[in-house]
Amino acid sequence: MEKVSIGAINCAYPLASFLVGTYDAEGKPNVMFAAWGGICCSTPACMNVSVRPQRHTHAAIEARKAFTISIPGIDIAAQADYTGLVSGAKADKFAETGLTPVRSNLVDAPYVAECPVVIELSLKDSISLGSHTMFIGVVEDVKANSDILGDNRIPDFVKMQAMIYAPGNIYQVPAKDGSVKAYSAGKKYLK
Amino acid sequence: MEKVSIGAINCAYPLASFLVGTYDAEGKPNVMFAAWGGICCSTPACMNVSVRPQRHTHAAIEARKAFTISIPGIDIAAQADYTGLVSGAKADKFAETGLTPVRSNLVDAPYVAECPVVIELSLKDSISLGSHTMFIGVVEDVKANSDILGDNRIPDFVKMQAMIYAPGNIYQVPAKDGSVKAYSAGKKYLK
Repeated sequence: MEKVSIGAINCAYPLASFLVGTYDAEGKPNVMFAAWGGICCSTPACMNVSVRPQRHTHAAIEARKAFTISIPGIDIAAQADYTGLVSGAKADKFAETGLTPVRSNLVDAPYVAECPVVIELSLKDSISLGSHTMFIGVVEDVKANSDILGDNRIPDFVKMQAMIYAPGNIYQVPAKDGSVKAYSAGKKYLK
Repeated sequence: MEKVSIGAINCAYPLASFLVGTYDAEGKPNVMFAAWGGICCSTPACMNVSVRPQRHTHAAIEARKAFTISIPGIDIAAQADYTGLVSGAKADKFAETGLTPVRSNLVDAPYVAECPVVIELSLKDSISLGSHTMFIGVVEDVKANSDILGDNRIPDFVKMQAMIYAPGNIYQVPAKDGSVKAYSAGKKYLK
């Protein structure tokens, strides 16, 4: 099929649904929805998230040299969406949504109790890219609800029911196992 | 629910499924599966992808200052998986899978014809993080199959049937629209 040019836009799906948790200069917990981020290194385990300098979260990460990434389940999709709509400079987003901030015991940032998986990160690097700053953090620990762990003690994607973000919509993870096994399905092409 | 520590591991889902396309020093097209990448800036539109220095793709990006990201549909999940199992230094992955390299008219890299969405990037920055180098590219253009465009001329996530990657499994996008609307569902918490 012939491909058509749609311009130099950002267009890659699926995207993550991250709730970035911080304390601001006054110690108020804040949380912001971010879809632009992911894993970026194995050793050390690192994750990246991009934040506009105008966001309350931006100054908080720079001040505290720490942040958390809480991964929301589909059950709190509306609350998660809200945290991307308003600024923590004006609203107490935890109070408005009823979500619960929990102080990390490892980094100077709060995570979201209602999220099945939370990741605690210390700031490693900040890269100014234009409209956004990319913050790179070293993973200090991951904490997970015990009921979503798989047999291997790793969070189970289906049990987590993480949000899947794509333009304008939030999708639910399919309720059954993926039918294609990674690091396996491709072996038929091996010589 | 009490959270349990599972250690400083990489654990964030869903992940992207990217096929990173490059020409090596000899001009041979190569393609590599990458789940560690995403969008990282609006203006300019930028994407990042992490690659180990040992990979054939790593030297190719550094030599050509360019790469592509092709987003595979679930129909080529096995071929995509294969491209992460072998090195382009040893195998001609396009020949082995039957996938078709197409020379970008904008950057010095090939994309995968069979992917519904392809993104052409010029190298902006390389950041050595430890086991992986993060390559940041500026999006020069996005090209898409016309039959997967939505009414807004943006690729439709459901029509694309992109792969959703999570530990050990590749999931299919749900066949129906997301039930939760982003930038909308959260408005009920606005004051």
